[in-house]
Amino acid sequence: MSYQILSAQTVIDYLTTLPAMQALFSDFAALTVEEIGDGNVNFVYRIKDNNSGQSVILKQAVPYLRCVGESFPLSRHRMNIEIMALETAKKYSPAHVPNIYYSSTEQSVVIMQDLADHAILRGQLIQGTVFPNFANHISTYMADTLFGTSDLHMTSEDKKQCVVKFTNTDLCKLSEDFVFTHPFEDNANNNYNPKLPQTAIDKVQKNGAVKVAVSQMRHKFMNNAQALIHGDLHTGSIMTNQTETYVIDPEFAFYGPMGFDVGAVIGNLYIAYFSHAYLSHASQDSIDYRAWLLDTIEQIWTQFSDKFTTRWLEHETQSEQLQWQYDNGIDDLKVYINSYLSDLFADTIGFAACKMMRRVLGIAKVADFADITDLDARANIETNIINMATHMVVNRSKFNTIDELNALAKETNTLEKITG
Amino acid sequence: MSYQILSAQTVIDYLTTLPAMQALFSDFAALTVEEIGDGNVNFVYRIKDNNSGQSVILKQAVPYLRCVGESFPLSRHRMNIEIMALETAKKYSPAHVPNIYYSSTEQSVVIMQDLADHAILRGQLIQGTVFPNFANHISTYMADTLFGTSDLHMTSEDKKQCVVKFTNTDLCKLSEDFVFTHPFEDNANNNYNPKLPQTAIDKVQKNGAVKVAVSQMRHKFMNNAQALIHGDLHTGSIMTNQTETYVIDPEFAFYGPMGFDVGAVIGNLYIAYFSHAYLSHASQDSIDYRAWLLDTIEQIWTQFSDKFTTRWLEHETQSEQLQWQYDNGIDDLKVYINSYLSDLFADTIGFAACKMMRRVLGIAKVADFADITDLDARANIETNIINMATHMVVNRSKFNTIDELNALAKETNTLEKITG
Repeated sequence: MSYQILSAQTVIDYLTTLPAMQALFSDFAALTVEEIGDGNVNFVYRIKDNNSGQSVILKQAVPYLRCVGESFPLSRHRMNIEIMALETAKKYSPAHVPNIYYSSTEQSVVIMQDLADHAILRGQLIQGTVFPNFANHISTYMADTLFGTSDLHMTSEDKKQCVVKFTNTDLCKLSEDFVFTHPFEDNANNNYNPKLPQTAIDKVQKNGAVKVAVSQMRHKFMNNAQALIHGDLHTGSIMTNQTETYVIDPEFAFYGPMGFDVGAVIGNLYIAYFSHAYLSHASQDSIDYRAWLLDTIEQIWTQFSDKFTTRWLEHETQSEQLQWQYDNGIDDLKVYINSYLSDLFADTIGFAACKMMRRVLGIAKVADFADITDLDARANIETNIINMATHMVVNRSKFNTIDELNALAKETNTLEKITG
Repeated sequence: MSYQILSAQTVIDYLTTLPAMQALFSDFAALTVEEIGDGNVNFVYRIKDNNSGQSVILKQAVPYLRCVGESFPLSRHRMNIEIMALETAKKYSPAHVPNIYYSSTEQSVVIMQDLADHAILRGQLIQGTVFPNFANHISTYMADTLFGTSDLHMTSEDKKQCVVKFTNTDLCKLSEDFVFTHPFEDNANNNYNPKLPQTAIDKVQKNGAVKVAVSQMRHKFMNNAQALIHGDLHTGSIMTNQTETYVIDPEFAFYGPMGFDVGAVIGNLYIAYFSHAYLSHASQDSIDYRAWLLDTIEQIWTQFSDKFTTRWLEHETQSEQLQWQYDNGIDDLKVYINSYLSDLFADTIGFAACKMMRRVLGIAKVADFADITDLDARANIETNIINMATHMVVNRSKFNTIDELNALAKETNTLEKITG
């Protein structure tokens, strides 16, 4: 069947043609369809059997950016990437990736587990929900996928074939432009809070040290094929409840620098932290929540680096490579692992900073602060984010511990009421 | 015509079928064929019209490593890479790449300009020939090709397609194993001068700082798709005479770190330098020649970085990018260029060091020292090379100028007689 754009009316007829769906649903007449996509890029439907309660999510890519329309063409190839990236992430970190029931590159369709009992993390962070297991889960996901898909784990041949397979020209270009370029120049595509002072904008766009540092991060993003990264791992790509954490929407996946994923998580948690400092910042609840956010950031990096190290040492002891097989060889390997993680930490800080700044200055905002209607208060948050991020990107190699980064956040946060 | 291995007997019949050769040679009966390959990897023939003097070189890849035979399969894909890399280098640096008259991926054949008036640089260095224009030529070639094929010059889309096109799995694996792995471990593939002290070998293979540094360089080689590099740019891949310099044999080309090419040139010149310190080292000729070698190294880096900077600034002033378009923006860009070249200098030193060590400890030797029959003298040269290279790779980020690196060479060289 040649490619056809589905609709709420035609989805069920399409499902009836698929053996995988025949096995899942006993009665197609009992199915209902609900369109649930946020409507930006793709079409997303929930299909549910109201008798059994069984439901699935169907996602279809159209050959343009949905929120703009056919005037903004975007290759359906992104769905091939998303399908392959979901399958790869599922292989390495099964607990944190939804089950995939069916996929078709011809129809640009993937049908997967309905995470009906989970919600997008960003919205839950805005509401102030605590997730005690989140740091553990997301650090596992990142250690599993980033170590697993790198040269540290794969054969040289397999990895190179994956680099080719995951070449994602169109969506990388979007990131290069909208994450690393437009926000850092006087570009008509940008979108500023009218109350954001020009001095804050200039601090990013006309500041030599920041410009050079961001150019270095952009070049690294474009050149460093370190692992299969998710490529868009902000808190809007994560679904959580109190017991589980899932990573979704890997259409930006490609072989890039690991720190871009780790930095996306951490940078977006700092955005939540600065935003919460405004939201009823004097209340004990808000003080506690900000403390939980910073503690989560600390736990994510600490646990990630521990798990990454463990996987590496396990892999090395099972390998037949001669490289570290001599007296004290494993001690030397540990020095290498530490230097590797030290570089990755600097990358993480640099990429986190770019993602923080782009949310303030670029076209794509995040609800954490953009939904705040008091524009002066919002400008205050945005200025804090810019102040922290500019310092981070320029000095990214000078931080020795995640505690130092958290200390910078507290110090930068003019709204911070936490003491001690 | 399906793929057929040519021979000295069948080459001329093959040429008669090619319109490009009909245009070049008026009388096929006047042609003579000479096999001139060194016999390691491919077959190479010189075909000459003895009346007109016109001649060409025909190179054909066979589906195995020629010097071993069919028991060592090696995909003919390497000739597709060589053809594409020759064409690309010719586009960016026409004066330093031979003309290509004809190529066929089906036959794994390329027919190109006969550089009959030129000789392989390594042999000429061993003989002590001075090439006053070499630093100028090779620095132009490297600035042209490395800048031209990078993200600094190409569009993001075109560059990513080139990364895919130049994926060179088999030959990269050879470099990963024979340049970055085996020489640095107690591997049965290695080949040591029996007079080389075990302490010198252990200084590389059981030295934590060296092991970590080499692992970092290997990882960078495997992950950093910075530009289309030649991939094997030692002095055996360069043909020179007093007026011209040509780069040949780019079958190892892929998108990798620029410093691997610059380091290959410089590292092999240091090998020549240490080797010449033995060869009649007390004579004024030898002293002068070593001074020329060090001066050439200095000129190569200085001119390369100047030319690279010039190309970058030219490109930027012709571009419509907004990135550096603000007051003092070009000054900030210059800071970025300097930081870029500073990183590239560290890479260059690190890769040069790896290539120096691998020639001493790995299976593939170079005639500069390996043809010296006095094994004690040879071991002395090899020890000097190891002493310099181990210091270089560990401290690669600490050198500020190429003069500092030359000073290290003189200081390390126990055979050095140059003063002042």
